[in-house]
Amino acid sequence: MQQMTLADFTRELSGNAPVPGGGGAAALCGALAAALSSMVASLTVGKKKYEAVREDMDALIRDAGRLRKEFLSLIDEDAEAFKPLAAAYRLPHWTEEEKAARRNEMEQALRRAAESPLRILEKTREAMALVREAAGKGSVIAVSDAGCAAAILEAAARCAALNVTVNTRLMEDQETAGGLERRSQEILSECQAESESIYLSVGSFLQRNQ
Amino acid sequence: MQQMTLADFTRELSGNAPVPGGGGAAALCGALAAALSSMVASLTVGKKKYEAVREDMDALIRDAGRLRKEFLSLIDEDAEAFKPLAAAYRLPHWTEEEKAARRNEMEQALRRAAESPLRILEKTREAMALVREAAGKGSVIAVSDAGCAAAILEAAARCAALNVTVNTRLMEDQETAGGLERRSQEILSECQAESESIYLSVGSFLQRNQ
Repeated sequence: MQQMTLADFTRELSGNAPVPGGGGAAALCGALAAALSSMVASLTVGKKKYEAVREDMDALIRDAGRLRKEFLSLIDEDAEAFKPLAAAYRLPHWTEEEKAARRNEMEQALRRAAESPLRILEKTREAMALVREAAGKGSVIAVSDAGCAAAILEAAARCAALNVTVNTRLMEDQETAGGLERRSQEILSECQAESESIYLSVGSFLQRNQ
Repeated sequence: MQQMTLADFTRELSGNAPVPGGGGAAALCGALAAALSSMVASLTVGKKKYEAVREDMDALIRDAGRLRKEFLSLIDEDAEAFKPLAAAYRLPHWTEEEKAARRNEMEQALRRAAESPLRILEKTREAMALVREAAGKGSVIAVSDAGCAAAILEAAARCAALNVTVNTRLMEDQETAGGLERRSQEILSECQAESESIYLSVGSFLQRNQ
C-alpha cells in the first residue's frame, strides 16, 4: 500500500473494508516519525556547529531510513495478517465438529492478528531511541520536528496496543493471550514515558530559547 | 502533496528540506484520524442493530470526508506558509535600513507561519467531535479504530501546537504572539482531554467485553 497516494490511502481507510484500519494507520504513523527523526539529522549534518555529532547523525539517517521502510511494509503485513481471521469467520459452524474446527482456526488467526501490531510496537520502541537522539543531539532549528516525531510515535504505539487487545481479548488460550497482552502493555508504557519526556524537553527548550 | 505516494512523501519528509516537516505530518495525522472515524461509521451503517443511528453515521461520513480533504490541503498550505519566511531570512541585512525592512518582513512571515498550524489545530478540534461520536455511537466491532483515531488526532494537535510555538517565540510583537500562543494552548488542552477520555473509554470497553 506504500505506493498509494496520500489521498487514495486515506480514502481507502475511510471505507467499510476492515483493512487498512487502525493497525495500518499505526504503521504509517511509525513511518512518519522515523522520517521526522531522519529530517532532524539531515538538517544537522554538514553544519559546522554540529561537526562533533556528524557520525551519529549519519548513523541516525541510515537507521531511520531502514525503520521507515519497515514501517511501510508493516502496513501491508497488518492487512495480510487479517486475512486468515476473515477466512476463519466465514467457516461454516452448524455442527459441533464444524464449530470446533472454526474455533481452532479462529484461535490461530487471532494470535497472528495480535502478533502483527505487536511487531509495530517493537519497531516503535526502536524508533523512539532514534527520536531521543535526534532531540538530544540534532540541530536546534529542527528540535520541534523531533518533538513531533515523539508525539506521532506515541500515537503509533497506542494504536498498535489497541489492535493487540482487540484480538487477544477474543482468544480462548488465556495464557498465550495474557503473554501477548503483557508484552504489548509493557512496550506501550515504555514508549509513552519516553515520548512524554522527549516532548516536554522540546517544549521547554522552545519556551526557554526565545 | 496529497498525490504523492506514502513511500515518496515519507522519503521527502526524511530529507533536509524544511517542508514538509512537523506541520505537514500533523495535517496528515489529522487526515488519518478523520478517515478512521469515517471507517467506524462506514462499518456501522446498514447494520440492523444500528438502524437508530443510521442518519448520524451518514452525517459523520460526510463530515469526516470533508475534514479529511481539508487536512490533506493543509499539508500543502503549511508548506506554502513557510515560503515567505524562507524568503525573509534571505533578505540582505547589512545596513540599518535593510535590517529594519528584514525584521518587518520576518514578523509578517512568522505570523503567517504560526497561523497555519493554528488552522490545523482548529480542524483537529472539529475532527475530535466526530471521533467522540464514532466511539459513542458506532459499531462495537470498530471501536478500536475510534480509539486509534483519538490517539492519532491528539498527536496531530501536539505537533501543530509545537509548530505554532516555533514561530511565535521568534516574533517581536509580544501581544500578537501571546494571543496566537494562548489560542493554540487552549485548543491543545481541550483536544488532549477529549482524546484521553475517548481512548480510555475504548480501552475499558475492550477489557470489559471479552
